[in-house]
Amino acid sequence: MTAPLAAEAARPSRTAVGAAVAALEARFGNRVATGQALREQHASNLTWVPNQPPDAVVFPVDTAEVQAVVRLCAEHRVPVIPFGTGSSLEGHVNAPYGGVSVDLSRMDRVLAVHAEDLDCVVEAGVTRKALNAHLRDQGLFFPIDPGADASLGGMAATRASGTNAVRYGTMRDSVLALTAVLPNGEAIRTGSRARKSSAGYDLTRLLVGSEGTLGIITEITLRLSGIPEAISAGICPFPSIGAACDATILTIQSGLPVARIELLDEVQVRACNAYSKLALPETPLLLVEFHGTDALVREQAERFGEIAADQGGGPFAWATQAEERTRLWQARHDGYWAAMSLRPGAKAISTDVCVPISRLAECVEGSKRDIAESGLIAPIVGHVGDGNFHCLLLVDPEDPGEVARGTALIDRMVARALAMEGTCTGEHGIGQKKIRFMADEHGPGALDLMRALKRTLDPHGIMNPGKVLDA
Amino acid sequence: MTAPLAAEAARPSRTAVGAAVAALEARFGNRVATGQALREQHASNLTWVPNQPPDAVVFPVDTAEVQAVVRLCAEHRVPVIPFGTGSSLEGHVNAPYGGVSVDLSRMDRVLAVHAEDLDCVVEAGVTRKALNAHLRDQGLFFPIDPGADASLGGMAATRASGTNAVRYGTMRDSVLALTAVLPNGEAIRTGSRARKSSAGYDLTRLLVGSEGTLGIITEITLRLSGIPEAISAGICPFPSIGAACDATILTIQSGLPVARIELLDEVQVRACNAYSKLALPETPLLLVEFHGTDALVREQAERFGEIAADQGGGPFAWATQAEERTRLWQARHDGYWAAMSLRPGAKAISTDVCVPISRLAECVEGSKRDIAESGLIAPIVGHVGDGNFHCLLLVDPEDPGEVARGTALIDRMVARALAMEGTCTGEHGIGQKKIRFMADEHGPGALDLMRALKRTLDPHGIMNPGKVLDA
Repeated sequence: MTAPLAAEAARPSRTAVGAAVAALEARFGNRVATGQALREQHASNLTWVPNQPPDAVVFPVDTAEVQAVVRLCAEHRVPVIPFGTGSSLEGHVNAPYGGVSVDLSRMDRVLAVHAEDLDCVVEAGVTRKALNAHLRDQGLFFPIDPGADASLGGMAATRASGTNAVRYGTMRDSVLALTAVLPNGEAIRTGSRARKSSAGYDLTRLLVGSEGTLGIITEITLRLSGIPEAISAGICPFPSIGAACDATILTIQSGLPVARIELLDEVQVRACNAYSKLALPETPLLLVEFHGTDALVREQAERFGEIAADQGGGPFAWATQAEERTRLWQARHDGYWAAMSLRPGAKAISTDVCVPISRLAECVEGSKRDIAESGLIAPIVGHVGDGNFHCLLLVDPEDPGEVARGTALIDRMVARALAMEGTCTGEHGIGQKKIRFMADEHGPGALDLMRALKRTLDPHGIMNPGKVLDA
Repeated sequence: MTAPLAAEAARPSRTAVGAAVAALEARFGNRVATGQALREQHASNLTWVPNQPPDAVVFPVDTAEVQAVVRLCAEHRVPVIPFGTGSSLEGHVNAPYGGVSVDLSRMDRVLAVHAEDLDCVVEAGVTRKALNAHLRDQGLFFPIDPGADASLGGMAATRASGTNAVRYGTMRDSVLALTAVLPNGEAIRTGSRARKSSAGYDLTRLLVGSEGTLGIITEITLRLSGIPEAISAGICPFPSIGAACDATILTIQSGLPVARIELLDEVQVRACNAYSKLALPETPLLLVEFHGTDALVREQAERFGEIAADQGGGPFAWATQAEERTRLWQARHDGYWAAMSLRPGAKAISTDVCVPISRLAECVEGSKRDIAESGLIAPIVGHVGDGNFHCLLLVDPEDPGEVARGTALIDRMVARALAMEGTCTGEHGIGQKKIRFMADEHGPGALDLMRALKRTLDPHGIMNPGKVLDA
């Protein structure tokens, strides 16, 4: 129905870029930077993606300044790339057509905390750890935990989730309302502080997960939770991926309100033993955590232990004391660095897929066969309660053959996940690197509709071009 | 920015309607009906709205037939109004510009149940009670309960929720994926069976709550829950609305996973006593329900009793046996008919608002003052865990002065809810009757964006015109 968007996202002329940067400098002074190191840093991801720096970086301090930036860039038809902390995994912050990176890190105020309503209002640059530090004294916390200390604006923009999602949901569920600057420079507020609403189209959910391609999220109203009275956490080895996945399914089905349930494959466990000086059995492991009252979290841990034993798992070691819990979860906390240590000098390429939980064991096992065939080292860690798992490919980016094998491996993993009625990404987003799977996942009609929405909001294609829909 | 849409939704010529109906009859034979009674029934709501019948009603049996209907109507620029069971409360199924009502009740197949994944796939005409009857043997249930035995397509289209939402969420949270026929007749599938995804724009959430103005939902993939092992339920009187609301806030804040928490004001209680021959104290009441293991639901009921007592509430009567629970909840089950019996012969106009829970007592009490000043009888019932409450205005539709007082009362209730950072409807939707609040709630920028989305998907304005955005 509609043609791809690529032509609209063409690189602007140097004259246009120069004029836009000059106008930004006139308005923002030394809050506009053009030094190469800073520009490259603003195109850096947590994992390896070829670096495509923007032409300039600007540091606005409020929504009105973001509006001014977008208006100036729109006038000159220069791309705008929102930037939180750079913890993206799929090239979201790259500037393939140049343009202006809008660094939101100075928008770091917690604007309001409504303890009775279990919500708060933050600027987009507040990180999740900063928010949790701010909330702690009030007995509240923000549960979405993607691992990295990401900005909440970035987390909303990529529809992030992480270890707690099985109990607390994802950014889709946690964002009650937001303020966003549209590609024409207009600021809109979507949603309200009401817990639910049937008043018109869900603009909040349209912007959550749009990866900066429909606008820049500048303020967010978030659902919070009470810090649980008690936590139990533990670790349990299993004879196989299948047994660990079956235990996960039974845990979810039985209604046990597990807060985290994480799978480590034996490659990851081996890495953790070496890196963190542990002596874990080198088999698939599940790490679990329960939140509630003291009696409840003990009961839940015991019930999980029974379910695990029925599937051939165990011994299940668990605890409620903070220190002991941290020790048991050491393997997960050090997971990323442990994985990296499997091949010193290599770069990591992270990828994730998500499938219906009944297909998870088959999907993980198939992916492990693909990894073995690829010859790459690629440990697997999963948020298995959601059917979501990650694979960290350790590659030498200077070896084109190896990079190609990594790409082919991801192609196979995604094709398998889609064949199982899953998705090409459970939580990392599309960015640059998963655009090639969008047509297969959504079909031409839905993809055309997404492109039509993009054209409606951003007719000149200035908002984060080269991401999500078309490279 | 953009002009209202009304002009685009002008009533088609009689020639166009005649041609469309003739074409439908040629295609669908006696599954097209034009009798007056049936047409009027297809413009009927659960509560009173002036009846605006369509020109014809068609009964498709699958997505391809819905596509054929939409294509024929699009060709002749004739409005299309989706119809589920007619349990709408805000005039969603009226045909102010005439056109064709698409009755989805024959699309009533449960296409798949995936017990391990806790999801199912249904056609849009399956009702929630039919689905639950289908699921019962597998130990599963679909928790969203708006009261009426609505169709699941209608519930998705209006972003419905109800008594269980405080624990299980709303249709926004429950729809994993859907199939929809767009205004150009194309069918798209949005989402997948994965529990979460970051793959592109959230078309599912764009269609959920769009009230048939962006397309017709024909199939839905829904999240399910395991039937709880045990249920406890009870009823507790409070000295004031404020005390009942404070007990609700403390219940939520303390992390008690209450499944239902319903407020009845003393007017509603009086009605229930009279109608159901009960002897409840005629003060505000909370009715609660907990789901879990037997030990858990007892503990939770006990903890709720303590919270209620601290707020001056009690005695709290509760039970775990089904019969006794039904008896305790009698007042809620009979609520609608009990309210109607307060003024025999009157028509009921239902309205709802939703506010942050910290403002709920103030909002309910203010609304009760407005009701007293209006001179109308209007009991209040609330899903107070979400800050959502309903008011049932009993009016004589033949008395224009009384209808005007009802309208003014709703205006004041909504203005108060919006001033408290709430929404003009928590779960009933906009339909025809709340369009006048959209600008106040969303502001011109967000409303313009909604209109732009409508234009993008439905350039000829044929999909359920006169609803949501412009009359």
